Amino acid sequence: MKAVYDKAHWQRHPKTELDGGQLVTPYESPERAEYVKSSVTESGIAQWLDPKDFGLAAITRTHDAAYIDFLTTCWQQWQDTGKAGEAIPAVWPGRRMQQVVPTDIDGQLGYYSFAAESSISDGTWEAAYASCQVALTAAEQVGHGEHAFGLCRPPGHHAAFDYFGGYCFINNAAVCAQYLLDQGDQKIAILDVDFHHGNGTQDIFYRRADVHFFSLHGDPLLVFPHFSGYENEIGAGPGEGANHNWVYGPGTTFAQWQVGLNEALQLIQAGGFDRLIISLGVDTFEHDPISFFKLTTDDYLSVGAAIASVQLPTLFLLEGGYAVEAIGVNVAKVLIGFEQQP
Amino acid sequence: MKAVYDKAHWQRHPKTELDGGQLVTPYESPERAEYVKSSVTESGIAQWLDPKDFGLAAITRTHDAAYIDFLTTCWQQWQDTGKAGEAIPAVWPGRRMQQVVPTDIDGQLGYYSFAAESSISDGTWEAAYASCQVALTAAEQVGHGEHAFGLCRPPGHHAAFDYFGGYCFINNAAVCAQYLLDQGDQKIAILDVDFHHGNGTQDIFYRRADVHFFSLHGDPLLVFPHFSGYENEIGAGPGEGANHNWVYGPGTTFAQWQVGLNEALQLIQAGGFDRLIISLGVDTFEHDPISFFKLTTDDYLSVGAAIASVQLPTLFLLEGGYAVEAIGVNVAKVLIGFEQQP
Repeated sequence: MKAVYDKAHWQRHPKTELDGGQLVTPYESPERAEYVKSSVTESGIAQWLDPKDFGLAAITRTHDAAYIDFLTTCWQQWQDTGKAGEAIPAVWPGRRMQQVVPTDIDGQLGYYSFAAESSISDGTWEAAYASCQVALTAAEQVGHGEHAFGLCRPPGHHAAFDYFGGYCFINNAAVCAQYLLDQGDQKIAILDVDFHHGNGTQDIFYRRADVHFFSLHGDPLLVFPHFSGYENEIGAGPGEGANHNWVYGPGTTFAQWQVGLNEALQLIQAGGFDRLIISLGVDTFEHDPISFFKLTTDDYLSVGAAIASVQLPTLFLLEGGYAVEAIGVNVAKVLIGFEQQP
Repeated sequence: MKAVYDKAHWQRHPKTELDGGQLVTPYESPERAEYVKSSVTESGIAQWLDPKDFGLAAITRTHDAAYIDFLTTCWQQWQDTGKAGEAIPAVWPGRRMQQVVPTDIDGQLGYYSFAAESSISDGTWEAAYASCQVALTAAEQVGHGEHAFGLCRPPGHHAAFDYFGGYCFINNAAVCAQYLLDQGDQKIAILDVDFHHGNGTQDIFYRRADVHFFSLHGDPLLVFPHFSGYENEIGAGPGEGANHNWVYGPGTTFAQWQVGLNEALQLIQAGGFDRLIISLGVDTFEHDPISFFKLTTDDYLSVGAAIASVQLPTLFLLEGGYAVEAIGVNVAKVLIGFEQQP
């Protein structure tokens, strides 16, 4: 399949992540993308393409334009205040407070975020923009009926209409779904197999019928993003019934998780979708440092094969996965399993 | 006047505050209370009383009982997870997310907060509880028609019905207002002269007519708490018209600030209130490290005198003020100015 990578992801290189009350070295590291690049290349299934530039307009079709403006100026605004650290939100609109966009950068950070682990630093915007162009370049191939893999870093599925968090700034899957609709598709399915709920993707399409969202993930009572991903979130308005969450607890094995995967794939097969987008996180892996599922490397072959069974032009976009060396192999296994399916 | 202090405030001794993307030594330090104790004692106007214990029931009259439960267990829960730092929220309910109380302590921290600078550590609950009992002990005196000063630490005015932040955990002023109503008062005024908007106090009484709230503060477009304190916040339902905010920009002098103070005092004088509670922050001081007003030490005499002019039994409760050595003198000046007024 076609695959897209951009070394510009290296511009996302924060030094700090707020974790357990400390500022630690971020789990979402540049090495992640390089391990994936290397393993996918070694697998021999990828024909690498250079990324194209689809411009900002493709992004603001999906995100609040004022939020994107904020992302483009945040680091400069932060530096202008003379603050010593990286940009981390420290106050946000609590319940019953006003949803106002403050002038001060501390206020803007809180308004445009839902989490504090994703420090913004020099190059964050540039890398997020490049990551989304990687996704769109792959999406263009899928629009032509091919399968493709966008090696996106930073990831995207936690980024909502107007806020960042969970290492995500631009929702690559959502931008690609909108792009494909704008190219003439009528109905897109997004299947999110990352360990964490794709709250941003859900948020963007929650009231829409043209993009259906399917997500399998760790119980948000127990894990990030905590305030999204419950099974009672089924969509609203025209989107009612188009949002599907499967919630799993600690120690979940592939056999258990696969039940939800197959339910999702049956709905996708029966749903009359033009194309399928996979939010491909491999933090479901048994040795992932911040997750609690128990999928093994070999299980990822089966994940790929199952996805292939619905026989739709499929766009894979990289999301999470933090067992750094293993994620390359695990991503490659999904793509190999997908390609091997007759 | 009667004054109340409890050395239990020393149990609030966090090592970290998230500020400018770094973990710094907290501005809200134990030394603050000691400087105030010392200066007020030196002024000779205080008769110090020992704090009494009014129990938890006085607190849950005002705060969500589940929130108070969270405060009592937070540090133990955090320690049980083996996290190395102090308890700092890192994810919260963003717009359009569910207002769910997660099982996991990271989720609970985000649900029950609106800011991340106030690390919770060993003794935080005990100090917050003691601070509120200091306030209530002073309030009891005011209920008998006296004036009194509660040397509260931690402060309270940013603590809302069900969330903490801004160094505040229990809203001492709000708990005392409810206590005085429960003792038979019909109508209480709370005047907040701290540099920062008393978002918590506003939140608690926003839909009530029996407690009116008056606050003068830095423009929330520019400063904490950013999402509360705008002049269009006038109360709602039965409380419509009972909430009053005066917003000032950088460099505000006493002459400018006094205009709002006098407007507030006129409304209080004409409002038929039984008693007056002052949220006494002195971070309006010209040398405060995190604020931008320009009040001088001598101005605080005038503040006290102006408050005395409304001739209501008055409860002063300590809130903010971070120019550590100066805050003792400045608080004493307010109380002296108040007592000297004929």
